[in-house]
Order: sequence, then structure tokens, then C-alpha cells
Amino acid sequence: MEARVEVTNVENEARQPYPNSKKVYVEGSRPDIRVPMREISLSPTETSAGFEDNHPILVYDTSGPYTDPDVELDLKKGLPDVRTPWIEDRDDTAFLTGLSSKYSNERRDDESIDHLRFEHLKTPRKAKVGKNVSQMHYARQGIVTPEMEYVAIRENQKRDQLEAITPQHPGQSFGASIPQVITPEFVRDEVARGRAIIPSNINHPELEPMIIGRNFLVKINGNIGNSALSSSIEEEVDKMTWATRWGSDTIMDLSTGKNIHETREWIIRNSAVPIGTVPIYQALEKVNGVAEDLTWEVFRDTLIEQAEQGVDYFTIHSGVLLRYVPLTANRLAGIVSRGGSIMAKWCLSHHRENFLYTHFEDICQIMKAYDVSFSLGDGLRPGSIADANDAAQLGELKTLGELTKIAWKHDVQVMIEGPGHVPMQMIKENMDLQLECCDEAPFYTLGPLTTDIAPGYDHITSGIGAAQIGWYGCAMLCYVTPKEHLGLPNRDDVKIGVITYKISAHAADLAKGHPGCQQRDDALSKARFEFRWEDQFNLSLDPDTAKLFHDETLPKESAKVAHFCSMCGPKFCSMKITQDVRDYAAEHGIEAMKAIEEGMYEQSANFKEKGSEIYHKA
Amino acid sequence: MEARVEVTNVENEARQPYPNSKKVYVEGSRPDIRVPMREISLSPTETSAGFEDNHPILVYDTSGPYTDPDVELDLKKGLPDVRTPWIEDRDDTAFLTGLSSKYSNERRDDESIDHLRFEHLKTPRKAKVGKNVSQMHYARQGIVTPEMEYVAIRENQKRDQLEAITPQHPGQSFGASIPQVITPEFVRDEVARGRAIIPSNINHPELEPMIIGRNFLVKINGNIGNSALSSSIEEEVDKMTWATRWGSDTIMDLSTGKNIHETREWIIRNSAVPIGTVPIYQALEKVNGVAEDLTWEVFRDTLIEQAEQGVDYFTIHSGVLLRYVPLTANRLAGIVSRGGSIMAKWCLSHHRENFLYTHFEDICQIMKAYDVSFSLGDGLRPGSIADANDAAQLGELKTLGELTKIAWKHDVQVMIEGPGHVPMQMIKENMDLQLECCDEAPFYTLGPLTTDIAPGYDHITSGIGAAQIGWYGCAMLCYVTPKEHLGLPNRDDVKIGVITYKISAHAADLAKGHPGCQQRDDALSKARFEFRWEDQFNLSLDPDTAKLFHDETLPKESAKVAHFCSMCGPKFCSMKITQDVRDYAAEHGIEAMKAIEEGMYEQSANFKEKGSEIYHKA
Repeated sequence: MEARVEVTNVENEARQPYPNSKKVYVEGSRPDIRVPMREISLSPTETSAGFEDNHPILVYDTSGPYTDPDVELDLKKGLPDVRTPWIEDRDDTAFLTGLSSKYSNERRDDESIDHLRFEHLKTPRKAKVGKNVSQMHYARQGIVTPEMEYVAIRENQKRDQLEAITPQHPGQSFGASIPQVITPEFVRDEVARGRAIIPSNINHPELEPMIIGRNFLVKINGNIGNSALSSSIEEEVDKMTWATRWGSDTIMDLSTGKNIHETREWIIRNSAVPIGTVPIYQALEKVNGVAEDLTWEVFRDTLIEQAEQGVDYFTIHSGVLLRYVPLTANRLAGIVSRGGSIMAKWCLSHHRENFLYTHFEDICQIMKAYDVSFSLGDGLRPGSIADANDAAQLGELKTLGELTKIAWKHDVQVMIEGPGHVPMQMIKENMDLQLECCDEAPFYTLGPLTTDIAPGYDHITSGIGAAQIGWYGCAMLCYVTPKEHLGLPNRDDVKIGVITYKISAHAADLAKGHPGCQQRDDALSKARFEFRWEDQFNLSLDPDTAKLFHDETLPKESAKVAHFCSMCGPKFCSMKITQDVRDYAAEHGIEAMKAIEEGMYEQSANFKEKGSEIYHKA
Repeated sequence: MEARVEVTNVENEARQPYPNSKKVYVEGSRPDIRVPMREISLSPTETSAGFEDNHPILVYDTSGPYTDPDVELDLKKGLPDVRTPWIEDRDDTAFLTGLSSKYSNERRDDESIDHLRFEHLKTPRKAKVGKNVSQMHYARQGIVTPEMEYVAIRENQKRDQLEAITPQHPGQSFGASIPQVITPEFVRDEVARGRAIIPSNINHPELEPMIIGRNFLVKINGNIGNSALSSSIEEEVDKMTWATRWGSDTIMDLSTGKNIHETREWIIRNSAVPIGTVPIYQALEKVNGVAEDLTWEVFRDTLIEQAEQGVDYFTIHSGVLLRYVPLTANRLAGIVSRGGSIMAKWCLSHHRENFLYTHFEDICQIMKAYDVSFSLGDGLRPGSIADANDAAQLGELKTLGELTKIAWKHDVQVMIEGPGHVPMQMIKENMDLQLECCDEAPFYTLGPLTTDIAPGYDHITSGIGAAQIGWYGCAMLCYVTPKEHLGLPNRDDVKIGVITYKISAHAADLAKGHPGCQQRDDALSKARFEFRWEDQFNLSLDPDTAKLFHDETLPKESAKVAHFCSMCGPKFCSMKITQDVRDYAAEHGIEAMKAIEEGMYEQSANFKEKGSEIYHKA
């Protein structure tokens, strides 16, 4: 018999508070709406006149209670409850008397896996007969739920004094319309319209709600999961807490190996972010890996099993239609999506239409009873540059658009998955077609990878494409790690993938002109300019690495307060010279200086006008 | 006394041939035009009908003779001569009887640095009185030089059989006009027009010529150089060979510490790629780091010193005018360019116009006597997102445009340096304004970094911006390493910086639709699809890392011929299922399949048309 699952990592790195930061909670209209944020304290600026305070910076925080030292955690019991009172107040759900899924019951009764089981299993909840418990349903009734209020608070990036002194560049939004202040009513309206989703299964009360839509901050997803060849439950739970510490907004559990039911339970009970899965992976395990043996019944039982565990969104490949499959035969890289190829194989073997398509409305019935969101899978996404934007991909996209409308008829929340491998000049077409076909349902893309020639660096080939498509309007970016195409990501790969995608998402937010988004850049640049090294590290996406790299060249503590850095050395420093320019300007009078400056700005304005002309010619 | 420079790395990693590759030479119109390329051999594809050959792939090779096992190398003697017969045939240069620079003579006569000196110093060459030896000058006389023919051969990416079977996507070129075949005459015309440069000092005969311009492949530069605080000659020479092994098209030696004259000699004598410098750095060392003490005479002597050593391009900050300096006073991050801040300090201290501006025509006289190209420095580039595209930056750009025309009057080759820190939505404006102001002289940008919040990952924040500006028309991308803003890059950082920028440059080439550029992507994707693991590694930008990552999960040799990978395991594999789709298509007749497919393509074409409409609305 195998050893009991020993989850000892509750005191691990993921529990360490971020340096010089504290967890703060912004309270909403009721005391149990407490939205977590990370507040980074900064040291004062030293001027000739004395010290000037730098206000603390608030940043979006996906790390959950792990980084709150006041919360006592025990992974064996799961995270504290956030949403139960909200769910209960709605009075449209009931506890089940048992588990609805046949498979769940089998697993519960199997004593041989007792050592793997999460001990404090909860009784699942389901919509009362005739009720629809999706956030979209409430939104369309005009109801602002606590979840909506929560995400509204969460999305407002608190602005500080920096904005008054630095130019906040206007964005280029490509049709997105991001308000200056995100209100609960705006959230409700976007969810009702289908332009955003709040993945929030009623069986995932530990969730800190978040929103995915192109009028909100660009989100990222981190994939974890064991395969037949490697990894354990402990490792996967650890990867989840690790990925969310660094900024993963949602987690997909893509496990395909042993004990995926139990692994998932551990993950959901300990996750403050939405969990997504690809149920066909587990369904395939249940039929011993033989795609032809898949049935609607096995799949349906899997959906219910996972919905009652609390999975927040399901990737479902309903758009892989029989008639699209032959379109992939002449592709350079065929079908690279696992779900897509499973369904292609099933369709071909039976020469019948995909049962995920023919049973789509049945699936909707399940989704709305638990509020599971669709992530409509792109089973025919291109797996190479050569295959980008081809007939198979675009055919499937059109079908996903039709399915979106069916799901919306049931008030079920939907996002749409996208490619894949796409060269830069073809990325915008993907975004534009998705918006058109799917009536602005949120787009959720894997990369895209902008070249095929750099295995080992596909976080970068894809981070380039992700930043662009995020700018163009993609709502969530699925990370790619350095191990893509080569192996399974370990802990370090997960971190590199997450940080790379936080960069892409933030670069996209800046480019869209998300209000307040530039404040962290400004605060960091100000700290850099003023040689406040510790503040520079602490404001960065990865303080540990920034500090480590600095210390490689100048390890002493004194170097972190030194007014120079290793790049130029103590004798000469460009930052220091800028101070001289400022002193000079101060000495020679700001008025004389402004006169020159205004003349220059005028020139520059003319200049930009002329520039715009060429832009239109191009 | 210090130990003698011991350069033992001639047998180091940089000399190892690439896996399964050989160095081949394509001969030009004369036998001494031998253009090196790397030929990657591929294993055959296994089909049910037997084996099908995969033609070898030729790729652009910047590694120089180091990767040719037939060449015997001794770093103490320098690389073999490539260009001397071409230079001599032109009969417009003469050997000098001594060194023209006062400083060079002092260093030569200083016995205390004998142990540091490169032993086999060559006598420098200079244009005969009244002659102009720049490639631009020849081009404008209608002369196609061997250098031009060399780069023409080098720029043609040999196409192979793959192109016939995969769609080569049309690019979006933003005004670039890349011919299907690059001819020597096309190269001449672009150089004459000023739209491209071939940096090729007559005192750098070891050079394998290359071209920088937006109608050619996008190039990358790697910076190396010691500072007052760290690094030695050996380390810098090693970084140079290491950076060019991984794909650096040019190298800038930004040394600021001790013995930079000697360091530079070692680097140039052992470099097959153009070497650029920022002469003001050394000039500043000569006046003990006191910017106010700089004079035209010291600077002039430094230019001549470096021109006679063989530096191929000089960054010169002639656009930092006195009137622009106060425009930086209210910036968040002031002046971040070292050269820019040196000149700003000088201008302010003397309240006089920048001597690099007032002496610009004198500088041109020196440049054309050795064929050193200008890289007109952007001393006022933004150092933070907040400062992007401001009046100081754009004012300087306009001045650089005026200086370009003056340099061209002297037939001196020019490229223009660009930012820096720029959010995505403002990158295209940079490119468009540069093309307009500088009459299409090649643009050479640092990044740009698309956000300030990720120190430790600025290769990525900037790789995103670099890919975009490369696509829009930037000719060369200056790499940024993970140590940017934090410390000096070591060997590993250099490699990561180079690979990241090769990705950005190649993604840009693909997006521009550079002919033949997609062949490497296609070959790699085909190898991936067919589970030819070794071919997949060997075709990648970094075979060592790709293989290492694969082996972390599946280390055995047998796994490299296995028809599955660690991501899905042996039981299920999407690649395998695609094979089933193909078999099915083959079995059910290609004609029936085509009928479906054609119907679909038609739909997809309509679909694209509709998509294009939204595109224009956006």
C-alpha cells in the first residue's frame, strides 16, 4: 500500500509574506465581502530638503490566504469559506443527500485509496429543481451578487499620488471600453451581456471571485496536472499554491494519470482561484484510454462528478465536428489538442457527429445547476505556424460561436479558447473573428506562439503573441512554460511561465490604457531612479529574483543603499547626472526652462501629426 | 604585476560544432567570396511505404570560423583574413607608417601593460588622401563590392521541398519591400539609398560581412564589456564568441573599466561579426571620469584610435542638444543613456552646444577614411514607461534625422538608435516617426521594454517590444539580458539574451513575410509531428537546452525515438491520432475528402472577408 498523502507544504515558500508587503482587505457593502489586496510599503525619498514619503502601492493579489500570516491554514482541512453565506442567501440551492455521480460513489467506497483521500469532504450543493444558479442568470435578472461586487472592488487599481506627476498614456483599446471606475453595476451588465464571466461553482465556496472579460484586467491561467508518467498529489497541490503566489488568476488541472479524482479534490479545497478542467481527459481514463469507447453516459457522469467537487470551468470540445476532421489531414502538424484529437478519433471511428455537440443542451443543463462556466475548447487549433488560421480552425470557431448562443439561451457563462501557433501578422485576425463569431464572449488563448523554432523557450515565443492578443482584446492568456513540447513543467518552470505571462498581461493592460495600471510601473521607475533598491525589488513581479541578480554583482547590504549600481560603477552614473540636470533647472528658474520646453512640445505635436499621416498611408 | 592574459577558450564550448550540422560555404563570383552557412542534416521520415528523406536545412550562421573544425584557430593570432584582397583590389587605401592616435602610441609604448597586449598587432590602413572608402560611397558610384555580393548570398534563405507542401503565409510589411531573391544589385541599391548599411571597417579584415536594413533579415546585437567593478579581457572575449555562437549579428563592446584599449583589440581580432563601441565611454575614462573635462581633441583622438583598431560602428550622441536637456528635468527617470547623460552634463557645465554636434562634419571625415558607420545614439531615450515618446526623445530624433542627411552628404553609412521603455500602443509611432525623420535610415532599438515592473525578466519585457518593432520595420534589435537594471550579464545571461532576441527577430521576419523564412519553422514542426526528437532539438535555436529539458522527464535514448512524449504518456497521443485521420482520409479517398474541404475553404474565405470588414472598422 502506498504512503498516505503528506501535504506538509503549508509552511513552505508559498506561505511566506511578500517582502515589505502586507495583506489588506477592502470591505464591500456587507462585512463578509472582504477583497484581498497586497499593499507594498515604500521607503521615503531623500531630497536636499529632507525626506518625502512614498505612498504604499496596492496591487492585485491572487495568492489567497496563504500570504496572510493571520490566517491559520491546514491543507488537510482546506481553505476558509468565503462564499457560503452568499450562496445560502440566494436560497436557490440545496445540499444533496449523496453524490450524484456513479464514479464519485465508487471512489468514495474504495478503501484501497483511503490514504489518498482528502479527509474533510463536503456535501455537494445543487440548484433546486427549476432554478438556474449561474452568475449570468442573476445578472440578467438585474441582480448584483456579492460575487459581482467583490470583483468590482478587486478590479479597481487604486491610484496614488504618482498619477498627478507622470503622464498616463492613453491606450489603444480596439473596441474595448474600460470605464475609469469599475462599479458592481458595470460588472453585472458585462456578465449579463456575455462579455465577461465570473467562474464560480457553488461547490467552490473557498473561491475569491474574479472576472474574465476584455473590459477588465487581462488574466492568466497556469496549467498543472500529473500524467501517466510522473508527478504526485503533493506536487500538484504545491504547484497550484506556487503558481497563484506568483500571479496565476486561474488554474487548470490537466491531470491524466492515476487518482485524478482525489488530486482534484485536494486542489479545489485548497484553491482560492477558479479551477478549470478538461473532463474528457478523465472520461478517457475511465474507458482505459480507448477513445472509441467513450460514451455520452461516461462523459455526463464525469461532468457531474467534477461539478459536485467544485470545478469552476470545463473545457469542452463541442466544436470538433465530423466534417472538420478531414480538413486537418493535410496539415503539417495535424491535430495537436488532446481533447480535439480524442473527439476526432471518436467521430472517425463511429462516423457519427461529436456527442459533445449533439448533447450540448444536456451539458448546459448540468452547467447551470452548479454554475460551471464553459471554456469552449479549440480542438482544431493550429499546432504549427504553417497551419495557422486554416479552414479547420476557422470552421470550428464558427461552430463555437453558434454554441455560445445556445449556452446563453440557458444563461450559462461562456468563454472561447483560441490558438496556438500563429505568426504575428495573423494574430489580430484571430481576435477580430472571435469577437465577431462569438458575439464578444471572452477569448482565452494559449499563447499564441509566434514561431516554432525555439523549443525550450516557448514561454517567450508565446509571451510575445500573448501580449499582442491581450492588447487586441483577449481576456485571458493561458501560460506556456519553458518545457512546452518537451516535458512536464516542474516548480521552477511553473514560476517562469507565470511571471512571463504576468508580463504579457500587464503589457497588454498598459497598451489598452487600463486606468491606474501604470502606477506600479511609475512607482518602480521612481524607486529605480532614486536608487531605492529594496523598493525596486519589492515592486517587481519577482522580488526574489531581482534581489538575487543584483546581489550577484554587488552582494553587500551597503550596495542596496548606494547611489550607484554595478553597471556603471561609483565614478560615473547617468542617474546622478539627471539629478544635476534637475538642480540646474531649479537654479536657472523653471520659467525660462518651460519656455524652451513649450516650444519643443509644440514642435513635437506638429511632428506627431505628420507622423500620423504616414501611419495611414502604411 | 598582473598575470598575462591567458586566452585558453579556443577549445571551449564555442568551438564545438552544432549537433548534426556542418559548416558549408557558398561561393560567389570569385573564389575568395565564401559565405558560411550551417547545414542541419535531418533523419528520414518513416512511413508505411518505407523511408522518405528530409532535405538538410541551411540556416544563417553568425558563429564565424569557430564552428568549422577544419579551421585551426589561435586566439592569440586572431581569426583568418576574409577581406584584405577585396580592400587591396580597390586600391584606395594605404598602410599607415604608424598609429595616428596619440593615445594608441602611449599604450603601445607602455611596457607595464605588455602582459595584456594582443601580440600580433597589424599595421592600420587608411583611405588615401581624397578617397572615401565607405560601402555607401562605392554603392553610389554603382560599384557592387565583394562585401555586397557576400551579404546578398548570405541573405537568401535557401528554400527546400517543404515550401511546396505548406502554405507560406503572406506577410504584413508596413512599407518594407523585400524581394523574393536578394541580388548583389539590390544590396547595392539599398546601401546607396541609405536604407541599409554594411558595417565594415577596412581595419577589420576578419569580418564576415552582414547587412542591416529593413528589407533584409532582422538582426540582433549583443552587448558585452567590463566595468570598473568587474570582468576581465578573457571573460569579454569569451562572451563575444559565446554570443555569436548563439546568433548575435553584431557585438557592442561597452567596456568602461581598465584596459579597454587592449580588451577591444582582443575582441576585434577574434570577431567575425561587426564590432560597435561608444567612444565617449573611453574618452571619459581618459579625463578621469569628469564629464566637464571632455574636449573635442580627446574625443577625436579616441575615434581615430578605435577606427584604426577596426571598430565597425560608433554610437555617437550628436543629437543631445543643449536645448533638449531641460526637457528631461521633469521626467520620471531623467536621462538613462550613459552617453546622453555625459553629454548633457558637458552641455550644462559649459552652457555650450554639444561638441559632437558642432563637430559632426569633422567626425564624418574620420568615418569615411576607415568606413566606420554611424549609430546615431539616442541619448535622450525614455528610461521608463511614463517618459515614452516625450518631447526630449522626439526632439532628439528630429535632430538625428538632420544629421543623417549630413552624413549621407559625405557618403557615410548611418543607422539610428531608438528606445528604450515604450508601452505597446506607442511602439509603432516610434517606428513611423523614425522612418519619416531619418529618411528610412535603418533603425536600431534597445527593446523596447513594454513594462517597467519585471526587473530580472527584462529580456522578456523587451523581447515583446522588440518583436513588434522588428515587424514594423526596425532593422536591428539590441538585446537586453535578464540582468538589465540589476547587474552585469554573465555568460548564461548573454546566451539567454541572444536566444530571446533571435526569437523576436525571427518572429518579426515571419510577420514581414521574408521569403523562405518559414522553412525552419516548418522543418521543426514536421520533425515534432513525426517524433523525430533529435531533429527537433537540432533545428531549434538552442539544441542543448531543448535536449536537456526533454531528458529531464524522459532521459533514456530510447525515448528519443519513441512515438510519444512525456506530456501525454504512451497510452494516448494526439499526434498519433492525427496519423489515424490521415490514414482514414487515405482510405476513404482523397476526392471525397476534397469535396468537403473545398466547401469549407469557401466558407472560410467568405468568413475572412467578413472578418476584414470588422478589421477596417476597428
